[in-house]
Amino acid sequence: MKRRGIGLMSGTSLDGIDVVIAEVCGHFTNMSIDIIGKAHISFDETLLNDVSNTIKHAQTSLADLCSLNYRLGHQFADAVLEACQRLQVKIESVDFIASHGQTIYHIGEKQGHHIPSTMQLGEAAVIAEKTGVPVVSNFRAADIAAKGQGAPLVPYADVALFSKLNEDVALHNLGGISNLTVVPQSKALDDVLAFDTGPANMMIDYAMRTLFNQPYDDGGQTAQEGSIIEPLLNRCLEHAFLKKTPPKSTGREMFGDDVTDDIIEAYKAKHKHKDIVCTLTEFTAMSIALAYRQWVLPRYDLKRIIFSGGGALNDYLLKRVQTLLPEIAVETISHYGIKEDEKEALAFIVLAHETLSQYPSNVPTATGAQNRVMLGQIQPVIRRTS
Amino acid sequence: MKRRGIGLMSGTSLDGIDVVIAEVCGHFTNMSIDIIGKAHISFDETLLNDVSNTIKHAQTSLADLCSLNYRLGHQFADAVLEACQRLQVKIESVDFIASHGQTIYHIGEKQGHHIPSTMQLGEAAVIAEKTGVPVVSNFRAADIAAKGQGAPLVPYADVALFSKLNEDVALHNLGGISNLTVVPQSKALDDVLAFDTGPANMMIDYAMRTLFNQPYDDGGQTAQEGSIIEPLLNRCLEHAFLKKTPPKSTGREMFGDDVTDDIIEAYKAKHKHKDIVCTLTEFTAMSIALAYRQWVLPRYDLKRIIFSGGGALNDYLLKRVQTLLPEIAVETISHYGIKEDEKEALAFIVLAHETLSQYPSNVPTATGAQNRVMLGQIQPVIRRTS
Repeated sequence: MKRRGIGLMSGTSLDGIDVVIAEVCGHFTNMSIDIIGKAHISFDETLLNDVSNTIKHAQTSLADLCSLNYRLGHQFADAVLEACQRLQVKIESVDFIASHGQTIYHIGEKQGHHIPSTMQLGEAAVIAEKTGVPVVSNFRAADIAAKGQGAPLVPYADVALFSKLNEDVALHNLGGISNLTVVPQSKALDDVLAFDTGPANMMIDYAMRTLFNQPYDDGGQTAQEGSIIEPLLNRCLEHAFLKKTPPKSTGREMFGDDVTDDIIEAYKAKHKHKDIVCTLTEFTAMSIALAYRQWVLPRYDLKRIIFSGGGALNDYLLKRVQTLLPEIAVETISHYGIKEDEKEALAFIVLAHETLSQYPSNVPTATGAQNRVMLGQIQPVIRRTS
Repeated sequence: MKRRGIGLMSGTSLDGIDVVIAEVCGHFTNMSIDIIGKAHISFDETLLNDVSNTIKHAQTSLADLCSLNYRLGHQFADAVLEACQRLQVKIESVDFIASHGQTIYHIGEKQGHHIPSTMQLGEAAVIAEKTGVPVVSNFRAADIAAKGQGAPLVPYADVALFSKLNEDVALHNLGGISNLTVVPQSKALDDVLAFDTGPANMMIDYAMRTLFNQPYDDGGQTAQEGSIIEPLLNRCLEHAFLKKTPPKSTGREMFGDDVTDDIIEAYKAKHKHKDIVCTLTEFTAMSIALAYRQWVLPRYDLKRIIFSGGGALNDYLLKRVQTLLPEIAVETISHYGIKEDEKEALAFIVLAHETLSQYPSNVPTATGAQNRVMLGQIQPVIRRTS
């Protein structure tokens, strides 16, 4: 069954909403995808501030949170309608919307009296009512209910989209954090390996903002002009996370702004600013290469890594990874007809499509779930005719 | 299509979870229902305290709230499994669960920068995973998205279940608040009238707790032995809510514990405790009768009122209503094969059944919604075999 879906993704960096429209057909490794287009929609500024403050303070009034969930629903609905207009797609032609929602809290493992749970906001009923299109949302809940961590969910889509290469291949996303999925030639979910390797853009972006007042290192030019500060690089490479056996995941608590800020404060007086960026880029490249050497290459016959995410546009970073892994072809996902920043929203189209066809789509080897589950809840709606 | 459903209802009084199991077949006025059984399950005490404190403080950490949503999901799932065991129903024979969830906040109308929204907790994915049964939940969201107040939702079920009487008839629920639905002989949703008349058990129960250390006035015996305090009755009858034109709704802010506490403090020194209970019962009966005289009898050819809810077990209250409305037959819902405390959970079985059949089930004349919508989001699950 062929369906036209819209994927909505808004990450923890709060840099806006990625909207991808695509047609999807078939199940799992027999799936085919045609991407119609993509739009990036900014948040309304008041809403952005309210979301950002809620996450930062980790404390809220029930009235604020109750209202925020619906305000985000309106924002996501407006993003869908705006994207359809830009891409000249009639909303009535869309079969479903896959909305990840804005994560405002996630508890992957039991912490004291807090049980594993997750909270994504952006009321699906509001999106469905404003667009007239059924919405699948709250994708992470069912995996957590099955005793998984509710993340990562993208590996299933990686397998669905790239198993037709018929070889062991790594899909590697460079967002704030760097994570990879090895899609096995066997196409068996039990053979999938997915884990975080450490930071991707998180440390580099923070250094660029703080030292150069720029949002990111465009093409890696700043890093390319710098030199490595050996003591800093060695200090970074000692991080315990690099030695941990996968599956493993990381986040702001290990490689966030506080950590990078300490580094900058310690080195900026005696070193060139671009050398700090160069060293953080080298650390990022080495932590990626090390992950492959330690955990992937011994187990898989890997010939290529396909990079996606904003970090895939950092040419210098990819060049460094290529130098450190000379036997592997380093590619970007754009060679496969998918833009670097389209993959995550696209992945949720894949997951929603499976759910609507009553297929499970979590990957227990990636999330730790006890069993396969269907991901997402379906908000039905009375369809409108054009 | 015939389905076996489980309805889960936990009201704002937090007195436990009503679980009703029933078989339902057909659509709207052609619907037939067979009730299999009912169980009332208490909350785990720690959980009850956490929910109660969260609602009371109206303030929370994101971690607490995130976790609470899943803890309530586990509690609801356990209630389902316990009820099935007590009633000797195999969970594998159940087609769906309709879970209202625990309301922790509701904004019916825009208040300052807070937009209409609602928040019911009890993660559906957890209920689905633990029971192996698909769950419909978050019933109020779609009506709010359609610019309704998200309440009341029971009127649709009242019409579905009682339109076969083929006469104008009122379904009247006496919970904390007293609310009625007039099911019209025409069976047309546009002719439905639904509104709150004022308090039902809310003031009486608080007085019984405070003055007699009892949870409620069993059969109305205390009220029956008391006498009316005329000045107090007159003061109560002056309440502006009684004069407001329906549709109208009320809650704790108008007839809650604070209000009753003021009354008790003002009258308990010079009057017998049972006279206070008698007067509050008389006020409750009169506010109900007045509502019919003012808003229902002029418009409908009403012959009977069918009472449900805990207050329908207060014989003295019903006797007073009967005396005040001598031309109307006062009945309880048990005469129609439904126990007094089964109707609300049963109503959500009706709504979920319609949603699963892709029918809308809000009543715009009751909620103020602009249009009909399908209520609830569906969590699919891989079915287990017995």
